[in-house]
Amino acid sequence: MKKTLKELAEWLGGKVVGDGDVEISGVASIDEANPGEITFIANPKYLPKLAQTKASAVIVSPEVTQAEKPLLCVPNPYLAFAKVVSLCSSQPYQPKGIDAQAWVSPTAQLGKDLTLYPFVYVGDRCRIGDRVTLYPGVFIGEDASVGEESILYPNVSVYSRTVIGKRVILHSGVVVGSDGFGYAKDGKKNVKIPQVGTVEIEDDVEIGSNTTIDRAALGKTIIRRGVKIDNLVQVAHNVIIGEDSIIVAQVGISGSTKIGSNVTLAGQVGVVGHIEIGDNVMVGAQAGVTHDLPANQGYVGSPALPHREFLRAITVFPKLPEMKKTLNEIEKRLKELEKNVLSVREEK
Amino acid sequence: MKKTLKELAEWLGGKVVGDGDVEISGVASIDEANPGEITFIANPKYLPKLAQTKASAVIVSPEVTQAEKPLLCVPNPYLAFAKVVSLCSSQPYQPKGIDAQAWVSPTAQLGKDLTLYPFVYVGDRCRIGDRVTLYPGVFIGEDASVGEESILYPNVSVYSRTVIGKRVILHSGVVVGSDGFGYAKDGKKNVKIPQVGTVEIEDDVEIGSNTTIDRAALGKTIIRRGVKIDNLVQVAHNVIIGEDSIIVAQVGISGSTKIGSNVTLAGQVGVVGHIEIGDNVMVGAQAGVTHDLPANQGYVGSPALPHREFLRAITVFPKLPEMKKTLNEIEKRLKELEKNVLSVREEK
Amino acid sequence: MKKTLKELAEWLGGKVVGDGDVEISGVASIDEANPGEITFIANPKYLPKLAQTKASAVIVSPEVTQAEKPLLCVPNPYLAFAKVVSLCSSQPYQPKGIDAQAWVSPTAQLGKDLTLYPFVYVGDRCRIGDRVTLYPGVFIGEDASVGEESILYPNVSVYSRTVIGKRVILHSGVVVGSDGFGYAKDGKKNVKIPQVGTVEIEDDVEIGSNTTIDRAALGKTIIRRGVKIDNLVQVAHNVIIGEDSIIVAQVGISGSTKIGSNVTLAGQVGVVGHIEIGDNVMVGAQAGVTHDLPANQGYVGSPALPHREFLRAITVFPKLPEMKKTLNEIEKRLKELEKNVLSVREEK
Repeated sequence: MKKTLKELAEWLGGKVVGDGDVEISGVASIDEANPGEITFIANPKYLPKLAQTKASAVIVSPEVTQAEKPLLCVPNPYLAFAKVVSLCSSQPYQPKGIDAQAWVSPTAQLGKDLTLYPFVYVGDRCRIGDRVTLYPGVFIGEDASVGEESILYPNVSVYSRTVIGKRVILHSGVVVGSDGFGYAKDGKKNVKIPQVGTVEIEDDVEIGSNTTIDRAALGKTIIRRGVKIDNLVQVAHNVIIGEDSIIVAQVGISGSTKIGSNVTLAGQVGVVGHIEIGDNVMVGAQAGVTHDLPANQGYVGSPALPHREFLRAITVFPKLPEMKKTLNEIEKRLKELEKNVLSVREEK
Repeated sequence: MKKTLKELAEWLGGKVVGDGDVEISGVASIDEANPGEITFIANPKYLPKLAQTKASAVIVSPEVTQAEKPLLCVPNPYLAFAKVVSLCSSQPYQPKGIDAQAWVSPTAQLGKDLTLYPFVYVGDRCRIGDRVTLYPGVFIGEDASVGEESILYPNVSVYSRTVIGKRVILHSGVVVGSDGFGYAKDGKKNVKIPQVGTVEIEDDVEIGSNTTIDRAALGKTIIRRGVKIDNLVQVAHNVIIGEDSIIVAQVGISGSTKIGSNVTLAGQVGVVGHIEIGDNVMVGAQAGVTHDLPANQGYVGSPALPHREFLRAITVFPKLPEMKKTLNEIEKRLKELEKNVLSVREEK
Repeated sequence: MKKTLKELAEWLGGKVVGDGDVEISGVASIDEANPGEITFIANPKYLPKLAQTKASAVIVSPEVTQAEKPLLCVPNPYLAFAKVVSLCSSQPYQPKGIDAQAWVSPTAQLGKDLTLYPFVYVGDRCRIGDRVTLYPGVFIGEDASVGEESILYPNVSVYSRTVIGKRVILHSGVVVGSDGFGYAKDGKKNVKIPQVGTVEIEDDVEIGSNTTIDRAALGKTIIRRGVKIDNLVQVAHNVIIGEDSIIVAQVGISGSTKIGSNVTLAGQVGVVGHIEIGDNVMVGAQAGVTHDLPANQGYVGSPALPHREFLRAITVFPKLPEMKKTLNEIEKRLKELEKNVLSVREEK
């Protein structure tokens, strides 16, 4: 791309402070930007870097009203940055066709303009939408479907009957539809409960590398529209994750739990099975959620507490040894005092 | 299948309450069941749903003695349910043979009635038992063996010399036999300790997607008969897991630790190296086990405490700020009182 | 190998106690060693086993001055053991060439003496160094490079433009260069921030099975020379890990965090984004690091505290219920006493 700052401001719906005619041909981080590039500051903690960056312009929030650099002021600098990076990096899709070393079942229904790399396997009766990209080592089991414009990176495994929506991105090593973890004890022996349900992944979902999503025992595991899941996350059987929720790396969600929409589970959070987490809930890193969480609040700790309650308690935690000591001393002094008071009384 | 409730009851060793002639042709969850299907209630909390389900019959425990629905009463409803699902879903094994695009070493010993999909790799001197299924992208390294009727799902990697038993199920992305994590420090430099041991997985083990089981430094890492491991679990070198134990998702077990038989480690538990966990132990989610655990007890917390001890302590945790405040006040009042008592004494 | 103990001592720079002419032809653990083999004791807790082992000689530290067995005394027995295992197990590299079922782009630059197994994919313009081994199912994206003598085990995925150094080992299922987890909120909608940076893995790095290393949003994610990473670890975008650091299984490191050199993060540690961990820091298992950590210290707990501080506090934790009870009793006794003192005063 090559645009003036003024043109970018118009495209983004922002305001220029300073020279709007400066030419922008790329985007970079504030430390690495060179002349000709634009950068951004979303976190006020980085504002001192405004004076040092070599970038030709900086995207900032409207609170910043002057600088030695030309500024592009927008209400949400991070979002504007995302849009500029997209503008700079996006390339039109070029289908590569179906490689001779891909294995595609004759009963599969294939869309137009596909890219199927070598060593892709597409099973019987699969449906593959238009402009889908399947990288090497991707496995699509029988009767599964992949919606249009989805991208499955190398070595993704999609078990049979899984339904994947449109514009879904599955990164390398993702497994969708493996058996849920269900056994009934027969004495000490573990008897497998066949997992005969499926997984449904709706449109515009992105799932990070080596994340695993198990098929339902009966019924469906469902990942709703717009959900974004990071790497190495475990989603157990019959879980439902609501629209636009964000699940950060290494989270584990146990069976039959329902996560609301627009929820954020931070890294390494664990959630027990058969509970509900309300809409817009935020759960802090490493928390352990053991019961239903009402909507619109923040939680942290293991077991999870409301955010503020946990913070107040954890602040006291390092003072426990001192508290214990004080308590012991007080007990002694009290005993002493009781003796004294008793003797005073007796003396009378 | 198509059976009367009476026939099912006979097969399961249960008792019918109500109409035993009702015909059952499928199984579903209590919310999704339709007429003609059977469902189950294992958890008494779901008993109110008995009145609402559309199922034609319900598997329950013998405590439930009447309902508007025909009932099938058995001592272990969850186990009976597992058996009915198996009955409905199991299909006879149909070998597909060895695909032309599989790569099989001429020195491999192959059993009968195999299913080897395209892009499978079977290395030199491997032994593959009868009726084994290897899905696309499965790698079997040199001198490894896979016992009869085992199923290895797509993109499973089995390193050289690994021994896998009969009727073992490895889900997609499982890695067995990768190098254990062992380095000796030479100053600051990390010198790799070659991992020359192996892994042995006994019969009837099931391992979840993307779980990793490292080979021993010397000797063997061993997963004993009937163990069930969930997704994304880490089993380090020289670990031994005893028979019928259950290891839930995202657990990590450090090197040379011995887990007894019939143990349950819940989700995200971490266990340090070189310790022993006794038989029948249950460890709660996210616990951190730092020393030997005697048999037959429950533990939770990080570091892990006996279940009850942890529960009592964690209940007090949110009250810490209040306790601290009380303690400070008491200290002040005590000081005041000491002064008073002193003055009383002096006045005398 | 076949060497006398004397010859081994010379090679390792150690001292023989006892018969130096005993012949050593292998190495094993202290419990499993047979005559003709050497073993080692690095941890003094295993010294009682010296009397029981069937090994012909034992590597120990110089503090051990006599035993019924011949001894090889060295300052660092674990390091000496590592060297002896290497000596016994290392075999000269034998290139297998490029299998006919590997897919290699005509624009790739290939070194000498390669081993490319079937079902390997090497994309356009890749550079593959001399004596590189790529196992089945390895994917190398466009414009990526792999330095000489590196080994990529089965089903490793290397995204486009990733740079991998010399003598690097990537175990099965490792993903390098997948998109970092970055979205800007546009109302409730998550707008993807294209991840246009790369990953650089320097020389002599080893990465465990199913670990994921994300590409930078802009700029680079960097794993420096000699770093060793265990299985199932998550390294987010723009992270930098300093030389010779050790990252144990299931650790998660959030975006833009800088880890110093010679750092150890124990199993299941979580580190938030945008912070710095100093050189030589050790963080205990399951800790949660929420802010910068100064160099040369140990930390543990979630949130992480200095090692000693945490230990002292956690020791008090199980006594909380008792402390609470004591506090309540003290409050009552104090009240009683205050009443008494008041009455004494009034009586006067």
